[in-house]
Amino acid sequence: VSSERLSQQIQFILEIDKLKQVVRQTKIIGGQRQENTAEHSWQLAVMALVLSEHANEPVDALHVVKMLLVHDVIEIDAGDTWSFDDKGYLDKEERERLAAKRIFALLPPDQAAPLHAIWEEFEEMRTPESRFANALDRLMPMLHNFHNDGGTWRREGVTMQKVLARQSAIARGSQALGDYSLALLEQARKLGIGPVE
Amino acid sequence: VSSERLSQQIQFILEIDKLKQVVRQTKIIGGQRQENTAEHSWQLAVMALVLSEHANEPVDALHVVKMLLVHDVIEIDAGDTWSFDDKGYLDKEERERLAAKRIFALLPPDQAAPLHAIWEEFEEMRTPESRFANALDRLMPMLHNFHNDGGTWRREGVTMQKVLARQSAIARGSQALGDYSLALLEQARKLGIGPVE
Repeated sequence: VSSERLSQQIQFILEIDKLKQVVRQTKIIGGQRQENTAEHSWQLAVMALVLSEHANEPVDALHVVKMLLVHDVIEIDAGDTWSFDDKGYLDKEERERLAAKRIFALLPPDQAAPLHAIWEEFEEMRTPESRFANALDRLMPMLHNFHNDGGTWRREGVTMQKVLARQSAIARGSQALGDYSLALLEQARKLGIGPVE
Repeated sequence: VSSERLSQQIQFILEIDKLKQVVRQTKIIGGQRQENTAEHSWQLAVMALVLSEHANEPVDALHVVKMLLVHDVIEIDAGDTWSFDDKGYLDKEERERLAAKRIFALLPPDQAAPLHAIWEEFEEMRTPESRFANALDRLMPMLHNFHNDGGTWRREGVTMQKVLARQSAIARGSQALGDYSLALLEQARKLGIGPVE
């Protein structure tokens, strides 16, 4: 083992510790505090293990899990851009591209390249794995909002139109989860905790 | 898709949200706050992706990642038992056994059984995957302490003898990481931030 190689790998592990300090809009269930991106990434990875049978096409489970574990590390530099932050989305792509370039490059080149590629794959949504991973990433905040009396839907007054636009991609990765999330929205509406009509 | 099956799976995903509220002794790098077990599990899973080449024996990467993602969910009921909490260790096994029984059983039986088994595998340290996963679980807090001016070693006055007893298992999973962690302890000693002599 080259100690230079191990040292680069450890440097990457230390760097990503910062993701624990990136705060998302969504609150943990029970609503005591906003969740951070590190714990969010963990929950998505476990979701992938448990829900992969619902993907529309067969998926490589390890590939999906890898993708979800690293899909948000770019937020260390780029910050979390809330799904309904129209202004933040204007330069989101550029900020995240620069972040990916810097952060993955901490690793030895033979490891940096495939992880950088898997992050791009997630963003592009062109493979079964990335469509399924994106479905989970969009479903989870809906579950949080539903189980937090409407969460950001109510607090920020998000419209049903905007939520549906984002939710619609869930069915591209998993029809079953797409149907589930639509039913969740309908139930939220009935309970008066859904997005603004 | 049986909706009863999906409903059980979602119930498990909601339940494990509680792991975000289980606080560990270790602080995040920079020392602003103690880390929680959910974000800790995420960091270990990424470590496994990056460091698996250093395992003593070839390991199944997906199996190691799965193991690390779920190895601590039992802390939802059993709480986090700090490695150097002698009293807490007296009934740790029994508390965690009961927790595993309840939490994994939220899943459909065909998913509960393998995840419960993988948790037991982690605890028993009899397979290459579990020895490697345990190595990472023991290395990470050492990295945190080293990069937090001694962290819990200093704050709680942990003795070098106790740290070495716990550290010694790292080499069983990875000789390279065992050597690295020993060198880290030596450097900590020189800097005056190591465990108590």
